[in-house]
Amino acid sequence: MNNFADKLIEQIKSKNSCVVCGLDPDWNKIPECIKSKYKSKGAAIFAFNKAIIDSVYDLIPAVKPQLAYYEQYGVNGIISFKATVDYARQKGLLVIADGKRNDIGSTSEAYAKAYLSEGDKTIEEGPLKEGAFECDALTVNPYLGEDGVKPFIQKCNENGTGIFILVKTSNPSSDQLQNLKLEDGNTVYEKVAVLVDMWGKESVGKYGYSSVGAVVGATYPEEAEKIRKLIPRAIILVPGYGAQGGDALSVSVNFNNDGLGAVVNSSRNILYAYKSEKWSAKYDDNSFADASRAEVINMNYEISKALRGKNG
Amino acid sequence: MNNFADKLIEQIKSKNSCVVCGLDPDWNKIPECIKSKYKSKGAAIFAFNKAIIDSVYDLIPAVKPQLAYYEQYGVNGIISFKATVDYARQKGLLVIADGKRNDIGSTSEAYAKAYLSEGDKTIEEGPLKEGAFECDALTVNPYLGEDGVKPFIQKCNENGTGIFILVKTSNPSSDQLQNLKLEDGNTVYEKVAVLVDMWGKESVGKYGYSSVGAVVGATYPEEAEKIRKLIPRAIILVPGYGAQGGDALSVSVNFNNDGLGAVVNSSRNILYAYKSEKWSAKYDDNSFADASRAEVINMNYEISKALRGKNG
Repeated sequence: MNNFADKLIEQIKSKNSCVVCGLDPDWNKIPECIKSKYKSKGAAIFAFNKAIIDSVYDLIPAVKPQLAYYEQYGVNGIISFKATVDYARQKGLLVIADGKRNDIGSTSEAYAKAYLSEGDKTIEEGPLKEGAFECDALTVNPYLGEDGVKPFIQKCNENGTGIFILVKTSNPSSDQLQNLKLEDGNTVYEKVAVLVDMWGKESVGKYGYSSVGAVVGATYPEEAEKIRKLIPRAIILVPGYGAQGGDALSVSVNFNNDGLGAVVNSSRNILYAYKSEKWSAKYDDNSFADASRAEVINMNYEISKALRGKNG
Repeated sequence: MNNFADKLIEQIKSKNSCVVCGLDPDWNKIPECIKSKYKSKGAAIFAFNKAIIDSVYDLIPAVKPQLAYYEQYGVNGIISFKATVDYARQKGLLVIADGKRNDIGSTSEAYAKAYLSEGDKTIEEGPLKEGAFECDALTVNPYLGEDGVKPFIQKCNENGTGIFILVKTSNPSSDQLQNLKLEDGNTVYEKVAVLVDMWGKESVGKYGYSSVGAVVGATYPEEAEKIRKLIPRAIILVPGYGAQGGDALSVSVNFNNDGLGAVVNSSRNILYAYKSEKWSAKYDDNSFADASRAEVINMNYEISKALRGKNG
């Protein structure tokens, strides 16, 4: 079973890209040319995702569907999530399910089965498979501590899957708990970073990176610099690029000097590029997927430039 | 729109019970008499839940399905989750979805739509409704701070729904982050408790309780005593009774002197009572639902006794 970190790094190297495309379907922003073709929201959402994947899969190592955006459409939303996961993997992409799941040990085990294990191929019942969503990685919240995280790591080690643990999130109020000062002078997020490093020790692959990664928002470069040093082996998933305010320069601190160690997610900027100031003169509703491709190429270029600037 | 806390307290008073039945279907423990009747796991899980609900609905204010236990069975698991929610509400029960969801503001809004709003009744597409899962309350993780929590509260205030924010969880390693000492002498969980009190101010109903509640594990009575004082208006959802080691005496500290202010969840002890040392002599596989009823009656009696002891 291949190590997840190894698979991710091989994708990054072969595609020369650390851009992750967030698949966060928002009904109000999906182009009319898609909406008008389908009666069901679930079917339209999958068709939209498929068009985006077809347009960018050769340029990116992974996609990151955000579970909330599927759960909000109920059972049909979940069906379109599963179809999206399966299609992305068919196209050779790694799939990071962004669910920020967490619970007590026995329940975390159930979440790990749901997202981080291959389905039971002996059951011939279509979607009814154990480990039914079969993703490559999952985002995980650390608030419950070690016994809420260990079942995920065990499943990762068994199945060549990975997790990204929230260390410092990209939102404005992430300071409220994460930056609390502890009596030993550290902050909560630094304490979590130290735990992530410890938890990831047994999951390090041949490139020196662990399948236990971290989430560190692009909007906090100062904290990111400290965190990078605390978790040298972790791959950092960086959200918050674009719509939330992070840019290529601010994300460059999340990388190690080998130019590796981070992937940068953008959702709205890529998915709805056709509506953006930058691209709307050139692309329209009907060429939405081309606009997304242009945005990925541009984002990749900007990040590569910032990394060359940092390392050269 | 009725306030969620008011609805919960009215249920507690009319049924004279603060017992919540956790609906955590575990395939290996579901009785053979159910399993043998259904070809699909999803259908069997719903049939099991329905039998339990039919057996105990008149004795309890609410049920708490744990989402992980449905997600682990994939799309069919989610279908059985939705069927369970709808059936429990038909029987007059409140439904607390235990998902421990959390994210940045815009994503929390999507989760709030998924679980805390009524479906869009104008769409005639069966399960394809906005706010499709239509629960009464959801458990929420606080690690992302205020802007990850506020969209839930807004939805609660609009729709008469509620949330329970994790303050101190029941698992062994909950100390690891939640009990960290801050430089001001408080702990992280105390800081979260103060926030819960503040966040819940605008959601207080006619009985003086807020629809913004808290999760405090039955396994930490010492911490629970401190938390109770910090959040006088919050209804505390107490997990960890039974299988995890909490008992009637340890949960009694979660109640206010009015005998209200807490609901106590038990999952495994109720669902699989027929297999337990306490009940297996009297009940068997075929009378599993009667065993669950006996356990609920017993749990209710034990907690009432402990509360009388505390207040008298």
